Amino acid sequence: MKEFSLAIVGATGAVGEQLLKCIDERKIPFKSLKLLASARSAGKVINFQGKDYTVEETTEESFRDVDVALFAGGPASVAFGRKAAEGGTVVIDNSSTYRYEDDVPLVVPEVNPQDLEWHHNLIANPNCSTILLVTALYPLHKHNKVKRVVVSSYQACSGAGKEGMEELIEQSKQVLNGEEIEPKAFKYQIAFNVLPQIDKFVEDDYTKEEMKFVWETHKIMDKEVGVTPVAAVRVPVIRSHCEAVYAEFENKMTVEEARQYLGEASWVKLQDDPANFVYPMPITSSDTDFTYVGRIRPDIVNEKALNMWISFDQIRKGAATNAVQILEELIKRDLLFKNR
Amino acid sequence: MKEFSLAIVGATGAVGEQLLKCIDERKIPFKSLKLLASARSAGKVINFQGKDYTVEETTEESFRDVDVALFAGGPASVAFGRKAAEGGTVVIDNSSTYRYEDDVPLVVPEVNPQDLEWHHNLIANPNCSTILLVTALYPLHKHNKVKRVVVSSYQACSGAGKEGMEELIEQSKQVLNGEEIEPKAFKYQIAFNVLPQIDKFVEDDYTKEEMKFVWETHKIMDKEVGVTPVAAVRVPVIRSHCEAVYAEFENKMTVEEARQYLGEASWVKLQDDPANFVYPMPITSSDTDFTYVGRIRPDIVNEKALNMWISFDQIRKGAATNAVQILEELIKRDLLFKNR
Repeated sequence: MKEFSLAIVGATGAVGEQLLKCIDERKIPFKSLKLLASARSAGKVINFQGKDYTVEETTEESFRDVDVALFAGGPASVAFGRKAAEGGTVVIDNSSTYRYEDDVPLVVPEVNPQDLEWHHNLIANPNCSTILLVTALYPLHKHNKVKRVVVSSYQACSGAGKEGMEELIEQSKQVLNGEEIEPKAFKYQIAFNVLPQIDKFVEDDYTKEEMKFVWETHKIMDKEVGVTPVAAVRVPVIRSHCEAVYAEFENKMTVEEARQYLGEASWVKLQDDPANFVYPMPITSSDTDFTYVGRIRPDIVNEKALNMWISFDQIRKGAATNAVQILEELIKRDLLFKNR
Repeated sequence: MKEFSLAIVGATGAVGEQLLKCIDERKIPFKSLKLLASARSAGKVINFQGKDYTVEETTEESFRDVDVALFAGGPASVAFGRKAAEGGTVVIDNSSTYRYEDDVPLVVPEVNPQDLEWHHNLIANPNCSTILLVTALYPLHKHNKVKRVVVSSYQACSGAGKEGMEELIEQSKQVLNGEEIEPKAFKYQIAFNVLPQIDKFVEDDYTKEEMKFVWETHKIMDKEVGVTPVAAVRVPVIRSHCEAVYAEFENKMTVEEARQYLGEASWVKLQDDPANFVYPMPITSSDTDFTYVGRIRPDIVNEKALNMWISFDQIRKGAATNAVQILEELIKRDLLFKNR
């Protein structure tokens, strides 16, 4: 495997920190590492694998000597993502900026690794909610096509970064103490509340977060799936997302078959033992890399449909782990520098 | 209107307290009032409308001189509900004990008041989640039949009574302080978590709470509606439920029509102005008697379907208010003592 210089853009945020953890855990080889962030965080020193790194401000020049850059997301993706890729850096970007562009593969390595073959140095990491949905559905879809999905989400505050998680914690304390609160990371109070809006409103009064389910499931898994995002909802949970999923298949799929197919997927942990109160929950899925699936039941109305409940860690598999897995897959398939 | 002696059974719980508030707010006439509860709460003194009432332990004898009894729910419903009705007391019961029995009307006054005509002294108050769903759907169903509903819920801790609300608050403090927690009202930690189980598991690994959506929507609104309860989920919210609803109609229904029909329903407050970030939320629906409806959008896949987001106060319209409205309706229709 070629050695490469690596940069993390947005290294001081929640996803950036997790990117570093994943690179360490998964023993990603690199010959040099550069930590980039906004001017506000420049100068911070981060110790990684026993070595101190000083965070530098991201500029166009930052990427000159960088072979691979993992962008955590945020304004830096818009400002520097495509430019860095055009300059020859392989960019894996966690923002939504480039996801829907025709020349950018949108990849969940367990589902569509083959899309890496046509990358042009810029690869998009999907939205957390879509990664959760497709990693749970794809093991079933492989055997019996998913025709229709109706999904509602229960999304953690980590989706709004460190600020989101900190706001939940600080605001919860304030509400419990009867103090005034002042929402910043979220439009309204998130402590002891749920918010039926994530990201801005787009067409037909859907939120962009809701439409990501549609656009991204089509691009990653199958453009024929009819996806209904009933609601993408922020809940007062720190870092794990959940989704309630109705899935209709081409042919009847029994609960037993679904459990078997999901059990065969190395990235899925079945937690489906209602008699013993075993089902996915944020407190048990947090800080792991698995997609947890449970509460699998035959639908009451449509005999070709199942209902299920799924959960995973939003910062890990929902963002950082998936990005690092894309890098691993590029290395494994020798596609990292295919455009050189 | 006949005067009647009134009893509240479970007067010291969350629903019992709210029943008293509703009786006061709605100026329900009664010639005498008896407050009943379990032995543990007997002896407590509650001041109501300027008068002190001593809470008595509920026994079979308690109902001898009681014309109307409002049961807040819990074990007293099982032990005394039907017996009191057989003894001549008109019982309005908030528990699930009698809801599915053929001789017991299950009533949401805005939807099926006509079912009060055949009561046999025992009338059931529906489950909170169903009341929310049918009060939002019925204004549409009247004009254009709902054929299919796919619903996921975001249910407040008040559904588990005072203990549930107190556990959320106390446990949140403990988690924030890094202390050990010990779940009691809920199976697992509810602070900063969501639980995909409410009530026990019944057929096909659905929870009873999920099946209530099916059984009760059929009994109250229309037995032809295909109801899929994808998940009934407890969220760390104090007292207002929310639901994400996909609803398919017999004929196409536009968003404009839906808004018009919902706007004509006196019990509905439309909160549907995404441009100004107006949509239903627990913090705004709490401690009101309205059903809030918003985020109304055409479905992406099925042109006869709409998606929406609804919320209401679980203790008020989800329990106490609905029960008191049943009493009002019985009085208005002169059906209170029809079996005498």
